Amino acid sequence: MELGVGGSNPPCCTKKMVNKKINKPSKELPLGFVDRNEKELLVRDFIISNIKEVMIKYGFQYLETPSFEFSDSIGKFLPDKDRPDEGVFSFKDEKKWLSLRYDLTAPLARYIAKNYLEIPKPFKRYQLGTVWRNEKPGPGRFREFLQFDADYVGTRSLQADAELCVMISEILENCGLAKSEYIIKISSRKITESLFEKIKVKNDQQKLTTLRALDKIDRLGWDEVEKLLGKGRKDKSGDFTKGANLSTQNIQIIKKELNKKSPETEDLIKMIKIFDDYNFSNYEFDPSIIRGLEYYTGVIFEANLKFDVKNDKGKIVQFGSIGGGGRYDNLVNNFGNYDAPATGISIGLDRLVYALIQKKEFKVKQVRPVVICILDNSLIKEYIGLQSVLRSAGISTEIYPGEGKLKKQMEYANKIKSPAVILYGENEIKKGKLTLRDLSSGNEKSIEIGKLVNEIKKII
Amino acid sequence: MELGVGGSNPPCCTKKMVNKKINKPSKELPLGFVDRNEKELLVRDFIISNIKEVMIKYGFQYLETPSFEFSDSIGKFLPDKDRPDEGVFSFKDEKKWLSLRYDLTAPLARYIAKNYLEIPKPFKRYQLGTVWRNEKPGPGRFREFLQFDADYVGTRSLQADAELCVMISEILENCGLAKSEYIIKISSRKITESLFEKIKVKNDQQKLTTLRALDKIDRLGWDEVEKLLGKGRKDKSGDFTKGANLSTQNIQIIKKELNKKSPETEDLIKMIKIFDDYNFSNYEFDPSIIRGLEYYTGVIFEANLKFDVKNDKGKIVQFGSIGGGGRYDNLVNNFGNYDAPATGISIGLDRLVYALIQKKEFKVKQVRPVVICILDNSLIKEYIGLQSVLRSAGISTEIYPGEGKLKKQMEYANKIKSPAVILYGENEIKKGKLTLRDLSSGNEKSIEIGKLVNEIKKII
Repeated sequence: MELGVGGSNPPCCTKKMVNKKINKPSKELPLGFVDRNEKELLVRDFIISNIKEVMIKYGFQYLETPSFEFSDSIGKFLPDKDRPDEGVFSFKDEKKWLSLRYDLTAPLARYIAKNYLEIPKPFKRYQLGTVWRNEKPGPGRFREFLQFDADYVGTRSLQADAELCVMISEILENCGLAKSEYIIKISSRKITESLFEKIKVKNDQQKLTTLRALDKIDRLGWDEVEKLLGKGRKDKSGDFTKGANLSTQNIQIIKKELNKKSPETEDLIKMIKIFDDYNFSNYEFDPSIIRGLEYYTGVIFEANLKFDVKNDKGKIVQFGSIGGGGRYDNLVNNFGNYDAPATGISIGLDRLVYALIQKKEFKVKQVRPVVICILDNSLIKEYIGLQSVLRSAGISTEIYPGEGKLKKQMEYANKIKSPAVILYGENEIKKGKLTLRDLSSGNEKSIEIGKLVNEIKKII
Repeated sequence: MELGVGGSNPPCCTKKMVNKKINKPSKELPLGFVDRNEKELLVRDFIISNIKEVMIKYGFQYLETPSFEFSDSIGKFLPDKDRPDEGVFSFKDEKKWLSLRYDLTAPLARYIAKNYLEIPKPFKRYQLGTVWRNEKPGPGRFREFLQFDADYVGTRSLQADAELCVMISEILENCGLAKSEYIIKISSRKITESLFEKIKVKNDQQKLTTLRALDKIDRLGWDEVEKLLGKGRKDKSGDFTKGANLSTQNIQIIKKELNKKSPETEDLIKMIKIFDDYNFSNYEFDPSIIRGLEYYTGVIFEANLKFDVKNDKGKIVQFGSIGGGGRYDNLVNNFGNYDAPATGISIGLDRLVYALIQKKEFKVKQVRPVVICILDNSLIKEYIGLQSVLRSAGISTEIYPGEGKLKKQMEYANKIKSPAVILYGENEIKKGKLTLRDLSSGNEKSIEIGKLVNEIKKII
């Protein structure tokens, strides 16, 4: 039976595809999506188990919510995008719209509302999961991320916010970073909120545009952000972004505020006091920290790396933070009248892994099997016996999985970086011994079958 | 700042949402999606690490492909659905359609085509990942699954197919199942292919309809399937499904073939010979096994549990297989002229976890923190000190994360099933001792701070 594929039409529109002759499909991935290799995945697994261990020690419990939510349940709190209307991947279901989650916090708020009566209060949960953002594709822009979150729900205590900062520090140090290699930057949405009062901005849209502009200081610098706070800004491509329309005088008030070196809001002053109690000093106050997501209401924080990160071409890139979060006291209230003030942190795993692999030599073990060569097809049963002995001893082993001659088998073993091959044919059987070839040294040894496990353990 | 949510409109159509007063969003999940609790997740993690260990021992290497692919790259090989045109979740991108993967095999074929020159041949990879199927929502029907796959690409050797069956058996036994609790069912698409020759069916659509009908024997029984092989079938809801339009005589030929007790095709005879070499006997030939996906070309197999699985209401459910796969020698060829015959297996993790939790008592440890009660806010620094001592000893600990009085704190500690609380207030400080209350026995002890770690280790 010949099977068809979907061609360039969507699968939902190719009813008769089985009978169609079509063009070859693309071998490429859509922009913003990547394949990940073993080395990266093993480092990621190591980091994940590290994070889990710390979060459990801090008293968080495991939860998982699904990839899809009703679109209205998770709302839209994303910062503006090149395509602001398409920040999420949405899908029309029978009657309602579904969206792929863009973070793990909005689904948590839905979970809290749904299970409010059953959960402990406060509720502390950790979650690992993929999130999606339908950004305009471009180099270095990903549309799929792995995040690791921890949240406190049902407490206003700044002890919670402070602990999250202490915890991410412990996680980064467990991953091998020195105190000098990262910093926790802190600020508060209360600063911008009181700024808005001072300059008499009441319109929510104007506030939003202002925050979005300020969130870009890192990337664009103050001069460009100043344009976005005023009438607007034309970017390199010629596209014009409308500004927040603030007066020059008000923009100067903002600039002055953001240059302050120590916090004046009550929440930050309290949090710093708790930091002192923890003997935690690897933080700095930075009022230019805004955090993209719109649901924050109080303290916000970010973990930033202090070393350069390079892209594939060896060029230093503007790397941004590898994690952050803050207080969102009103998010659950979108679902009704719940008492669920909350704070949380999100670690961007892909970015963290990317940076750590550059900085540190991770000794992850890429296990490769010992290859038992097929010298004689009639000896398969013997090969299976050898393989079984080795596997029972916990040694990764395979009978050559293809159909080529010995030369091809050796090429294969070298290609997969196998530690050793076993040769067992007529000659070996006569001698009652097999030949073990160490592929890193090239040495060959004739050994008794009973000694095979021990000999291989010397090599791997 | 008040923040809006998307209402019942899709996020992509609610530009002015920030200024809108809207209805409360839904607290519910879309049908076919679920939240997963800690117990289930910990058992799943245990099973995942078990599977990984076995697959590495068998010589597979780690790979990850993304959730999204170009729709035409992964084609559409799904069995028919109640909504056949919508078996996948697809999104229109800038110019092309993207789809969420419906399995891990079609993306692997794309990966092979893309990286054909670099990969070892044969190529053996394992992958863990979520897949999505946009089925018509209904009770017990999920639209998001976690799969764990292992595949051989670049070999026609039936050694590979046989090993996959041996491997999944080892995995199931490592997860605690006895040989009597599962069976590997085997068949081959070559059986149906030669049937089609015998009854002179050449039309691909007719073949497809026939296979889809046969795939339902398990669920509908032969009598209903007979209707689907003939003119068609009206289901309970009154919906009519067009049949394969085979003659009564041909349907009887098929019936006879599917009742055969031993295989006659060369591939199965060879594979059984290899099973014998492995001393592997926990399989049975079952020509009614079809496997849903359309890309199979040869040997197919399924792992079936032999014990009853119940649903939430205690009713025994038709559970189906917890894993399966087979040979797909032509899939990579959709991308061009590659020599990439392949075979693979896919384990349905959610189903496996669901069944195993019913069958076995998993001793997964749900770690709960020791709670340090806040008796006096001025002692926070002391509480942080105690917490630090315990955490450094690897003991999950938290200072009560809320703001309630002692009674509320104790309620919280009991609710989260904390093993113990620590009481440290004015009285305790005077005595130079703290009070440790074991929450399972209710016993209280007054102990010196230096002995805290040891005392707690006796409890947890």
